[in-house]
Amino acid sequence: MFIAIEGGDGTGKTTQVELLCRWLEEQGHVVTRCRDPGGTVLGESIRSILLHRDDIPMCLEAETLLYMAARAQLVRETIRPALAAGKIVVSDRYLLSNIAYQGYGGGLPVEEVRKIGLFATGGLLPDLTVVLDMPVEEALARIDRTLDRLESRGREFLERVRDGFLQEAVRAADRIAVVRADRPVEEVHAAIRRIVESMLVSRRSAT
Amino acid sequence: MFIAIEGGDGTGKTTQVELLCRWLEEQGHVVTRCRDPGGTVLGESIRSILLHRDDIPMCLEAETLLYMAARAQLVRETIRPALAAGKIVVSDRYLLSNIAYQGYGGGLPVEEVRKIGLFATGGLLPDLTVVLDMPVEEALARIDRTLDRLESRGREFLERVRDGFLQEAVRAADRIAVVRADRPVEEVHAAIRRIVESMLVSRRSAT
Repeated sequence: MFIAIEGGDGTGKTTQVELLCRWLEEQGHVVTRCRDPGGTVLGESIRSILLHRDDIPMCLEAETLLYMAARAQLVRETIRPALAAGKIVVSDRYLLSNIAYQGYGGGLPVEEVRKIGLFATGGLLPDLTVVLDMPVEEALARIDRTLDRLESRGREFLERVRDGFLQEAVRAADRIAVVRADRPVEEVHAAIRRIVESMLVSRRSAT
Repeated sequence: MFIAIEGGDGTGKTTQVELLCRWLEEQGHVVTRCRDPGGTVLGESIRSILLHRDDIPMCLEAETLLYMAARAQLVRETIRPALAAGKIVVSDRYLLSNIAYQGYGGGLPVEEVRKIGLFATGGLLPDLTVVLDMPVEEALARIDRTLDRLESRGREFLERVRDGFLQEAVRAADRIAVVRADRPVEEVHAAIRRIVESMLVSRRSAT
């Protein structure tokens, strides 16, 4: 089973990935945790260009393609082997982030971004994507560091990104769940746990 | 006018790019010379990963997407502004290389690589592409350094790459010309010059 945790910056993704992985392990599952971009030597070197080199001029297309390159490697080097070994993979972000940020947010054609995503991932999409959602204002207030390349694109950009996540969730309600994230960490975790649990149960009864 | 010089490794592209640029300048043109991947800060940093880090595991899809990212930036930062300023752009490699190497050579679906190429370049293709062609054996013998990531993929791979360049030239004979490169540098240069010259003349008479 492949789970992605998605959502805007400041919505608490990394914390929730950690809590979810810990809980899954307590349930006896073997978990591979990764982050996208990242998770491989290539991916981490791309990540450092994408998120820590604001001095390098980069158009939206180049940015998108760099994320896709990192993801292509992550799928083949990390995610597919882990799934083949029967592990549960939990990823901090995945393709939906490019669709929301560079597509809905940046204005690149959403369907083209999606198609390049299918090329990059060889068609591997998460069985379940959880989108952590909260008002942009509140998410921004929770980021206590310098904003990176994406975060610094302003309020309206981030509103379009949020809207993109929500629209995509409506479009694929069978595999994308939205969880309200403007509440205590434990409550958000419990909501995610319930969704994952019901998915695990239905998978067990299907086999 | 946008010209790309393409072909396998060892066919003398870089030398011919240099001779062509010098000749164009002697004719009074203002020339922007670039190489792909490269030509921008982002492109050069991607180039160093692609061509000088054989230690980093990289699948064919990731490799293709990295080339595309570098090209996306090259188009917007260098090629388009130069063309808009009335310059002639001469590029050492461009999209056709990915189609030949990762598509025909590596086995990725050629039409998908082409589509991602159109996304990356915003649809900007060279007005003229010159493919330098020679037998693979001879081209390999002319490379007097350690083979890089692509070159070291073996004889059969390089045969498929050569075949890809030739097939694409047949497919788009109006904008891709093949020049035999297994002859003296000056003869190859003269052949390229004749093709470029007739293109410049027909453009002048068209305006």
